[in-house]
Amino acid sequence: MSEEPVGGDLSRLRQLNASAVLRELRGDQPLTLTELSKRTGLSRASTEDVARDLLGRGWLAEVAPALGSVGRPARRYRFNAGAGRLLGVDIGGHKALALVTDLDGEVLNQTRITVDPEAGRRERLAVLDRCVAKALAGAGVEASQIWSTGVATTGLVDASGKVMLSDSLPEWSGVDLTAHVRRLVPGPVRVENDCKLAALAETWRGVARYAKDVVFLLAGLRTGAGLIIDGKLHRGFANWSGEIGALPAAGWLRAPEHLTNWLETTARPTGAGPTSSPTSGGFERVFLAARGGDASAVQAVHLYVQDLAVGASALVLTLDPQLVVIGGGFSRSADVMVEPLRRELDRWCLRTPEIRVSAFADEGVALGAVRLALDEVEATIRTGLRP
Amino acid sequence: MSEEPVGGDLSRLRQLNASAVLRELRGDQPLTLTELSKRTGLSRASTEDVARDLLGRGWLAEVAPALGSVGRPARRYRFNAGAGRLLGVDIGGHKALALVTDLDGEVLNQTRITVDPEAGRRERLAVLDRCVAKALAGAGVEASQIWSTGVATTGLVDASGKVMLSDSLPEWSGVDLTAHVRRLVPGPVRVENDCKLAALAETWRGVARYAKDVVFLLAGLRTGAGLIIDGKLHRGFANWSGEIGALPAAGWLRAPEHLTNWLETTARPTGAGPTSSPTSGGFERVFLAARGGDASAVQAVHLYVQDLAVGASALVLTLDPQLVVIGGGFSRSADVMVEPLRRELDRWCLRTPEIRVSAFADEGVALGAVRLALDEVEATIRTGLRP
Repeated sequence: MSEEPVGGDLSRLRQLNASAVLRELRGDQPLTLTELSKRTGLSRASTEDVARDLLGRGWLAEVAPALGSVGRPARRYRFNAGAGRLLGVDIGGHKALALVTDLDGEVLNQTRITVDPEAGRRERLAVLDRCVAKALAGAGVEASQIWSTGVATTGLVDASGKVMLSDSLPEWSGVDLTAHVRRLVPGPVRVENDCKLAALAETWRGVARYAKDVVFLLAGLRTGAGLIIDGKLHRGFANWSGEIGALPAAGWLRAPEHLTNWLETTARPTGAGPTSSPTSGGFERVFLAARGGDASAVQAVHLYVQDLAVGASALVLTLDPQLVVIGGGFSRSADVMVEPLRRELDRWCLRTPEIRVSAFADEGVALGAVRLALDEVEATIRTGLRP
Repeated sequence: MSEEPVGGDLSRLRQLNASAVLRELRGDQPLTLTELSKRTGLSRASTEDVARDLLGRGWLAEVAPALGSVGRPARRYRFNAGAGRLLGVDIGGHKALALVTDLDGEVLNQTRITVDPEAGRRERLAVLDRCVAKALAGAGVEASQIWSTGVATTGLVDASGKVMLSDSLPEWSGVDLTAHVRRLVPGPVRVENDCKLAALAETWRGVARYAKDVVFLLAGLRTGAGLIIDGKLHRGFANWSGEIGALPAAGWLRAPEHLTNWLETTARPTGAGPTSSPTSGGFERVFLAARGGDASAVQAVHLYVQDLAVGASALVLTLDPQLVVIGGGFSRSADVMVEPLRRELDRWCLRTPEIRVSAFADEGVALGAVRLALDEVEATIRTGLRP
């Protein structure tokens, strides 16, 4: 939440009329002035005024007239997604990932920098800074062109964008990410938990686009959840929804141990990293062995899925969602996970929802952060001027 | 969901203008024609036309002019809650309860008839019929005056109002309550699960009026939940939300056994019913003993609350609600339950929400059914004519 206006020119848009016109043009179809006038209820003259103004500011673009028109073809206008830029950043345990996009969320640059999981706060924030700088440079964009920024982080985030509690990242509890990122870019900065933003990305650009009620499961080193209810990200009273994993009876605290135990009791292949701090990628080995029919690996994955399914069933029984989406590092091994998971859900749930696997690689969370940034721009378009 | 219009005259209201006027008058304040014209955006002449029409139909009433007006005081109008009647019915394991109300939900008659828990479908439906007839007679209302009806039942209810599954009532799975109740009253009939309607009643007239995200716990012979999310009843994709109790790990399947066991191992007081099928009232004895300091009763209640709290914590961690409301038969003994429950929630949850006890006796569920009936009337007012 920020007091700064979105976009340099916005504070001078003195009419809600402009908002009404922009709102209509956020759809895919370019519209003529006649169509715009009809849809907004504004007079033809007002519509022309507004369109001229918005063209001058770069928010609108003119497109070629429709073919086959009789007489002089009418000019058509579309929203100019190139008028500004958005930034989405994911700062996690093993990486920083930054996306620079246009106002439609089309990605202009994606930059990824690895972070040591043991890195302290200062070091991790420095990687975040480098990642943002590199992404901006890669997109050929000045920081001043960024209208709005979304930031994703692990841990519990409060409404002001401060990390209240992070179990997995050293020195991360208490970091004020909003304040930090505001030093890098102008415009509003919003910070949110990574599972929530991954869920948001799935309903926006992912496999959950058609669904109104969605449970997103982050299956990886950590297990987490993000909830879409009635088409909207559900945050909860203190922004701490989706944290069922904290309940021991839900099985998630224990779930990854079955995989860790397997990794520790089998020989490490040449060149593999230390098993003491495996990445999601390190876990690939147990899924690979299970896929190959190794009995002990099959059993380890089975026990993992059993524990995952208890918490997942609790979410499904509570919300009765249309869809469960599996994302996170382990979702790359979904072929050995989905059917066992479905069987476990069948066992506990009254109705097993459809299960889909995220189609994103590791950019889903950052894409959700872009969506958060875009929400801010669209709220401005909806409400007209900020106070 | 019904095809029938709400209210006898509604199908003749040909203008959305009427809806706009009614919408404005649903508030508490009576309004003058000038105020109505301003708020609806209708011309003075149109507003007068609509008001005259609605007065004629009985939807509006004129109230005495405001005191202290200068010159000839302007007429003021209010919504006439007496124009029609609503019916709310709760058909449960031990009772049928019917409420007849006006269009503001003010109760004109409340009728309760006991049912044998072992009664079959035909017998239970016959009690429902008698209960409705008696409530209508008690309110001095003809069935034809009922504009809209809500029905609450235990078990899983589908969107058409059919009971899909009921574990607790004999021969109840498959009963088409919508069709049955439509034989008794005109107008739309909507059927919903009792926990969901109890939750709705709490946000409408109960202790949850101020909260947008609420977990309602039904604590009684059965344990159940109803969820209010973002101010609305959350139903889920197949209307099966709130069923976390089906998961053994949630503890609810086992929870009441601690109390049953105590009742079975202690001597029955003179005149008490058989312990094989105790009512919520029968359980009063264990709470009474616990309140009196009986160590084994205190322990039984403690074990009950421990199990209740696991499922409750799963709901709280999932949704992060502002408020948890305890209702159902055991809520009368809330004084010995709330503090232990709070301690258990503190143990498992990241943030323990406020806990409140329902202020309803056993009419909460039926009141939720009235709210469901009222939703139908208000939807009609909002959208104007039905197709």
